[in-house]
Amino acid sequence: MGTKTKKTKNIKSRIVKHKGDCSWKKIKPAVYKEASDGKKGEDWTQVARHSLIAGLSGEQTKFHLRYFEVSPGGCTSFETHRHEHVVVAIKGRGKVKLGGRTYGLEYMDIAYIAPDEPHRLFNPYEEPFGFFCIVDAQRDRPVPIVKKGPEKRGKGGLIAISGLKILS
Amino acid sequence: MGTKTKKTKNIKSRIVKHKGDCSWKKIKPAVYKEASDGKKGEDWTQVARHSLIAGLSGEQTKFHLRYFEVSPGGCTSFETHRHEHVVVAIKGRGKVKLGGRTYGLEYMDIAYIAPDEPHRLFNPYEEPFGFFCIVDAQRDRPVPIVKKGPEKRGKGGLIAISGLKILS
Repeated sequence: MGTKTKKTKNIKSRIVKHKGDCSWKKIKPAVYKEASDGKKGEDWTQVARHSLIAGLSGEQTKFHLRYFEVSPGGCTSFETHRHEHVVVAIKGRGKVKLGGRTYGLEYMDIAYIAPDEPHRLFNPYEEPFGFFCIVDAQRDRPVPIVKKGPEKRGKGGLIAISGLKILS
Repeated sequence: MGTKTKKTKNIKSRIVKHKGDCSWKKIKPAVYKEASDGKKGEDWTQVARHSLIAGLSGEQTKFHLRYFEVSPGGCTSFETHRHEHVVVAIKGRGKVKLGGRTYGLEYMDIAYIAPDEPHRLFNPYEEPFGFFCIVDAQRDRPVPIVKKGPEKRGKGGLIAISGLKILS
C-alpha cells in the first residue's frame, strides 16, 4: 500500500502482441503439465498451455494468467485443490465438470471454480476449445481424482463416485 | 497450501453466463470509478466497469477480474500506482499510454503495466473499446497525474511533463 512513485527496477511494462488465432509473440505453448507433475492415474490429454503472465519476466502480480487450448476430444485432469480458478472461454466451445454437474462454456462465459471443487475442462466438439485460466500465483498443488469404480447418479442430480480416491 | 479436501462453506462454483456483446448475466455495469474516488483534476470519461470476479460473492482469489468498456472518445484516468495491471483487449481497439509512449491494442493483445508506470487507456476510434483488466485484490489507491504545464517531447522519445504533480 502507499503512494510510492519510485520506479521498481528490472520490471518493465510491455505489450504481449497477439499473432492471431490465440497465439502470442514470444509465448511458446507447452504441454499442459510438466513431466514432474506426471503421476500414475492422471488422465488429461491434448492440452497446450500458454503462460502469458506468470512471473517469468519479473512480474510480481499475485496472480498468473494462462491460456489453455484443448484439442477436440481432449480434457484436463479431473482434480481438486484449495486454490480457486477463474476460467474465461475464448475460442470454440467446451464443457466444465464441476463436482457432479457439467456446464457448457461458450465465448466469454466465465467459470468460477471454488476451493476444493472437483473439476475438469473438456472438449467433446470438433474444433479447439481455448480459455484463459487465472489463478493465484502462490497456490497448492492439484490433487488428481482417480475413479476406481462405476459412476452412479445420486440424489439431487449429483454424481457419487464409488471407490473415489484422493491421491496425496 | 496443503491438500485439504474439506469444502469451504459459503463459496460456490458458478458460471457467469455471457449474454453477448461483452455483457454478462447478473453483472451490472457501473461507472468506472466510484463517486468517492472523484478528485479535482481527474480527467477520465465515458468508461463502464463490469466487476466479474471481485470478491463480491465470497470469492477469495488474490486477484480481481474486471471488464471495462471505453466509449468512442473516452479514456481512463492518467494515473500511477504501485500495483500492476494486466489488460487484455477484447472488443474493438484502443490505445494505451505507458509512460511517454503509446501503443495500439487490438483483439487479444495484452498489456502488462509495471508498478509505478504512469498509464492511461483511451479510445480514439468510432467503436467501443473493451478490455479485461486483472489486478491484485489488495492494492494501493491510484494516484492521478495532473498535467499543469505543456507536454514536451524529451530524449529517447519519452515525454517530459513540466509542472507534473502527483496528488497524494
